[in-house]
Amino acid sequence: MIDLLINKIKEKENPTLVGLDPRVEYIPGHLLTDAFSLYGKSPKAIARAFYEFNKAIIDSVYDIVPAVKPQIAMYEQFGAEGIQAYIDTIDYAKSKNLIVIGDIKRGDITSTAKAYSDGHIGRVFIEDREFTIFDQDFITLNPYMGYDSIEPYIGNCKKYNRGVFILVKTSNTNSGQIQDLDLGGEKIYERVGKLVSKWGEDLIGESGYSSIGAVVGATHPEQGAKLRGLMPHTFFLVPGYGAQGASARDLKGCFDKDGLGAIVNSSRGIIAAFKNEKYKENFSDKEFALAARVAALDMKMDIQSVLT
Amino acid sequence: MIDLLINKIKEKENPTLVGLDPRVEYIPGHLLTDAFSLYGKSPKAIARAFYEFNKAIIDSVYDIVPAVKPQIAMYEQFGAEGIQAYIDTIDYAKSKNLIVIGDIKRGDITSTAKAYSDGHIGRVFIEDREFTIFDQDFITLNPYMGYDSIEPYIGNCKKYNRGVFILVKTSNTNSGQIQDLDLGGEKIYERVGKLVSKWGEDLIGESGYSSIGAVVGATHPEQGAKLRGLMPHTFFLVPGYGAQGASARDLKGCFDKDGLGAIVNSSRGIIAAFKNEKYKENFSDKEFALAARVAALDMKMDIQSVLT
Repeated sequence: MIDLLINKIKEKENPTLVGLDPRVEYIPGHLLTDAFSLYGKSPKAIARAFYEFNKAIIDSVYDIVPAVKPQIAMYEQFGAEGIQAYIDTIDYAKSKNLIVIGDIKRGDITSTAKAYSDGHIGRVFIEDREFTIFDQDFITLNPYMGYDSIEPYIGNCKKYNRGVFILVKTSNTNSGQIQDLDLGGEKIYERVGKLVSKWGEDLIGESGYSSIGAVVGATHPEQGAKLRGLMPHTFFLVPGYGAQGASARDLKGCFDKDGLGAIVNSSRGIIAAFKNEKYKENFSDKEFALAARVAALDMKMDIQSVLT
Repeated sequence: MIDLLINKIKEKENPTLVGLDPRVEYIPGHLLTDAFSLYGKSPKAIARAFYEFNKAIIDSVYDIVPAVKPQIAMYEQFGAEGIQAYIDTIDYAKSKNLIVIGDIKRGDITSTAKAYSDGHIGRVFIEDREFTIFDQDFITLNPYMGYDSIEPYIGNCKKYNRGVFILVKTSNTNSGQIQDLDLGGEKIYERVGKLVSKWGEDLIGESGYSSIGAVVGATHPEQGAKLRGLMPHTFFLVPGYGAQGASARDLKGCFDKDGLGAIVNSSRGIIAAFKNEKYKENFSDKEFALAARVAALDMKMDIQSVLT
């Protein structure tokens, strides 16, 4: 699966990942009005408005970006209707030939991990029938519980040609509280990085990268560069660009000498561009999807400027 | 919220938590047949069969146990219908005055954590209306990302009288791979334990325990006892009893001198008791809920035997 992602990045000449993390306050008024008139002011209305919002964003960017990353929390908070909108968003993105990275950050004991894995990247079996439920290409995972909490996903990655990105060094302010603790010459995030690298050894593709990737925040440039050296076969999902504070220069160290090895996420910087100072004068609320396209193209140029 | 849980434990004289982690293979044939006849062999049929199964278990144990712990993965793997069955299970358990601990193990950056927190233990706002979506009393969380990934839950714990249990030392085989790493005289799980204790300081109730609790696996008895000493105001959720291998003696160290301070989970040992060697001769498939009651009473006696 990692080879497919890398090929898409090469084809689009763009290592930009669009984070589909809708919030009520990002949804243009006309989409909310439509949804409220159909479903009242209800969780279902918000869920359907999120889906309409995502469809328009996807229609506007699918030819210029390789992949999207919906964040399940934004949907899950609205219950079953929210989860349906999440699944519908995945289906729609895949119908436009985008790679879908589900940002779910699950982590649990083996038997539970198997349930998550089967639902999110595998199949569930009901007597003689099998069902694909979430159908994501990649998902994100949390490593705190160790290898047996990851193994059921690796099995499905092999079986169904999927991939995962495991949290190594995250982009948030307090990420160092546990991840930067010192093991005597080595930090926790480095140890976790080495483990993730080892766990992915069986799944290295023709690209030289493994389908078992790592989440490495752009907000810690030296740490990103250090991990790039420690994990030469591990592809990085890099959050933290833009709204979270990291610039293109900060994430250069996450890439390899060929300008590959990482995909950089931006969520609100793209999907809510029409509310951003930089774009709002030129785009009305109804042009939110066009603003997202322009922001995604600006991000592409910004990243390319440090890679070449 | 922790005082309410402790009062229920005292009232029932039972620190047993029933894990509602249904699997297709635990569901008696007659419930599956009913569901398939209504909904075909579909995710919806399994979701509704899970709910019927849970209702019968709840009806059979609500007068003898203080709380239940549904594991969301088992439901989530079946998509939106699964999530609806999870929510319906929570509602039904609460209608029987049980405390509900949602085993969701979420962990993400602040803005995302806020979405999970609002949906799972808080409220979501849609213009002038507010909605309670999952309505759990407690949820479980993962600490790998640090304090800012936990803070939005602490806010809702205060605002809506809820609680959380944060993973400190888990019960699975490879839990030590990261959690037992040595920081020079201190293990990661001890450091995390101290952090969790500190994060809970503002939420200590009349019982002397905080609504910010810890998950401490019963499969590591010495570590449990050590953490009990390090974290005198932190209530423990203890998985690993029974099917995962720990005995009542193993978990004694998780309790305080008054026999309080911990609640012990058993999932398949109770809900699938009718399939267990010990009970299956005396209970038919149709008596699965009665077998669960007997197993829960046996567990109560077993734990009480080491506490007195």
